[in-house]
Amino acid sequence: MNKILTFNMAAKDEVLSSTVEKQFQRLMSNKERDIKSKECSWIFDGKWIRAGHIHYSLKGETRVWETVERTTRKGTADAVDIIATQKDKDRILLVAVYRPPINKICVEFPSGLIDKNEEPSEAGERELREETGHEGKVENISVPVYCDPWKSTENTILVQMSITDDAGKQSLDDDEYIEAFYLSLQNLLKSLQSLKEKFDIEIESKLYLFALGLENGKTLLK
Amino acid sequence: MNKILTFNMAAKDEVLSSTVEKQFQRLMSNKERDIKSKECSWIFDGKWIRAGHIHYSLKGETRVWETVERTTRKGTADAVDIIATQKDKDRILLVAVYRPPINKICVEFPSGLIDKNEEPSEAGERELREETGHEGKVENISVPVYCDPWKSTENTILVQMSITDDAGKQSLDDDEYIEAFYLSLQNLLKSLQSLKEKFDIEIESKLYLFALGLENGKTLLK
Repeated sequence: MNKILTFNMAAKDEVLSSTVEKQFQRLMSNKERDIKSKECSWIFDGKWIRAGHIHYSLKGETRVWETVERTTRKGTADAVDIIATQKDKDRILLVAVYRPPINKICVEFPSGLIDKNEEPSEAGERELREETGHEGKVENISVPVYCDPWKSTENTILVQMSITDDAGKQSLDDDEYIEAFYLSLQNLLKSLQSLKEKFDIEIESKLYLFALGLENGKTLLK
Repeated sequence: MNKILTFNMAAKDEVLSSTVEKQFQRLMSNKERDIKSKECSWIFDGKWIRAGHIHYSLKGETRVWETVERTTRKGTADAVDIIATQKDKDRILLVAVYRPPINKICVEFPSGLIDKNEEPSEAGERELREETGHEGKVENISVPVYCDPWKSTENTILVQMSITDDAGKQSLDDDEYIEAFYLSLQNLLKSLQSLKEKFDIEIESKLYLFALGLENGKTLLK
């Protein structure tokens, strides 16, 4: 089930220019960078996150960087974000979630932490069921991508699913406030903008960028 | 210059179903949610970030949530992320940045903090110049979107730019390690995957989701 999103790229189908290849070969072996081992000292050590300082060396100088980490990672990634669609009905399943840090409802992909000994695909199926009450079939799974690498190690895996069952019931923890709804896939960016204009909600960045990519695809791609 | 990304949506061109409209009207006025004022107590109080507890009330119960914030926001958003393209040359300008929290090179959009009294469009032009040495023309600006609303208030504004000048020189701080490069816009997702397969780099989530949206646009959209 752990198929990486390769989109049928043929083995010899090269997409990187020789300029970029050489640039990255140099970049990865660059002695000027001269990065030394990383040590962390935590000042805030919570149940879900911890924050403090990284001590490291770059270009020969010792430096300090402020950082935050999730404390709960069990495997290669913290979480899954689920892109769950019904293409024949032109719709994507999203959630509206109350988020204490911004004290507002935020519109997002269904998502959740990957449990111990759980495959990302299993986490995707489980979280979709828990947050939306729907069953889905996993179609593709991404590499782990990093949500805010300037400040944290937090990462997530994108699980693309097709929704197979509209019945069911949410199963939420007492401190969760989540509601599922559909938007048009064809008009995803416009729909998100319309929600933002009419209601006092915020939009999560990964979802917005997916919508922006879809919209740009209409005009940018041949 | 602060045009919001509306993509020529006609004033009466409704994209939200009446079901979603009603769902959000109910959601925004829901008494069950019963959210009370938010207070924060900081335990780690750094120069760039602070972390600690939010004390709030949901569904009538007092609760505590762990949170982190940027300390540097001057206006409505912390930062800009720049989608800088040359469409006639089928390419997008990206950066490879050393990120201490993950102790690796991460591939990202050019980005940076919005300065005091600076418009997002100005921040986009300045950061593109500083990080890549290129000049660009701002074409569209998004609403602020939230990067990790489960844990922080951090937000960013997407600035779409067309690159107008290939000359120029980077202007970086001493603790920055950033290199600019072009990838194909048509094959953005494949190119990112190829970079990840060949080199020990990571990919930032907003960039990955934009690429995934573009790729999905090829097959999902009519």
